[in-house]
Amino acid sequence: MKRSFGAQAVAYPLPVFFIGTYNISGKPHAMLEAYGGLCCSEPPAIAIALRSTHKSYQHIQEKKEYTISIPSAPYVNETDAFGISVNDDIDKFEKTGLTPVKAEKVDAPYVGEFPVVMECRLIKTIPIGSHIQIIGEIVDLKIDENILDSDGYPTVSIINPLGFDILRSEYYSMGGVVGKAYDCGRKYLL
Amino acid sequence: MKRSFGAQAVAYPLPVFFIGTYNISGKPHAMLEAYGGLCCSEPPAIAIALRSTHKSYQHIQEKKEYTISIPSAPYVNETDAFGISVNDDIDKFEKTGLTPVKAEKVDAPYVGEFPVVMECRLIKTIPIGSHIQIIGEIVDLKIDENILDSDGYPTVSIINPLGFDILRSEYYSMGGVVGKAYDCGRKYLL
Repeated sequence: MKRSFGAQAVAYPLPVFFIGTYNISGKPHAMLEAYGGLCCSEPPAIAIALRSTHKSYQHIQEKKEYTISIPSAPYVNETDAFGISVNDDIDKFEKTGLTPVKAEKVDAPYVGEFPVVMECRLIKTIPIGSHIQIIGEIVDLKIDENILDSDGYPTVSIINPLGFDILRSEYYSMGGVVGKAYDCGRKYLL
Repeated sequence: MKRSFGAQAVAYPLPVFFIGTYNISGKPHAMLEAYGGLCCSEPPAIAIALRSTHKSYQHIQEKKEYTISIPSAPYVNETDAFGISVNDDIDKFEKTGLTPVKAEKVDAPYVGEFPVVMECRLIKTIPIGSHIQIIGEIVDLKIDENILDSDGYPTVSIINPLGFDILRSEYYSMGGVVGKAYDCGRKYLL
């Protein structure tokens, strides 16, 4: 038996995307967003959805460039600080000690301490309702050198990204590998 | 030091969305998609991105209705079977034993065995490049009664959803709670 919860935006897992922008005077700014996901392979693109009242939305419309950094679980407290509404005068990078690093290919800051970073260029802005979707071409993907495996790629367990429980307002970590894709289900198709 | 991987669509975590549709003759069909995420609160909406060659894309354009079921880790093998390309004559529901259940509010099937289900109605179709984004209003969210906690909501650990590692083509499970949102970072802002 399933219980109906009505019209509600809930899914699992949801990401914790850390969106980095510069404001008009070049000061780094960031916010968290759990609404988003990949949306295209060619060009590689990622969607995030924001409210138009967010500063980040305004910065992205001005600069057309931004980053998405993927926080790792050991930085959950610092990350959460960027999701809390506060007085504009508080510099959250200074308060948390996280390091805004100027991206290489776009005019936006990423978080130096976070293991995975996307440099994005705005390609579409799509009003939906309370939220406006921002589609960005991923012009560069960056991953910390020191977490790459011998095959040159990282594992999820080492990246240690966060998920967001939107019903309970909690962050969770990732577990272990449970199956090989395009493979573990093949037995059913013979 | 970060290594540049160039223009690539990679993020963490990515979901494993099980998209359920009926074809023109009413036969249940399903596919997996890791490209997607929530995109609006009012109306509650979710985005997925498909290639136009996918049958699911064609069904959604015809019916304007579909479901997204969230597989749980114990069903990783059955789930994977729906991600493997095979001869059209193979009925994957029959082969895997998963049960297509007619949704209540839309004309599409969800998976009876999966703990969380969204019933969706198409509101926007957005061509991006190789993929076309499908935005659906979530008209009903359903969750298995027997996994609801005493407060009426589920926990991620009981839902036990899958994530998809797009670089390694692996499914992974979720870990434990690591922080309370809008709270664990507050100490930095005092």
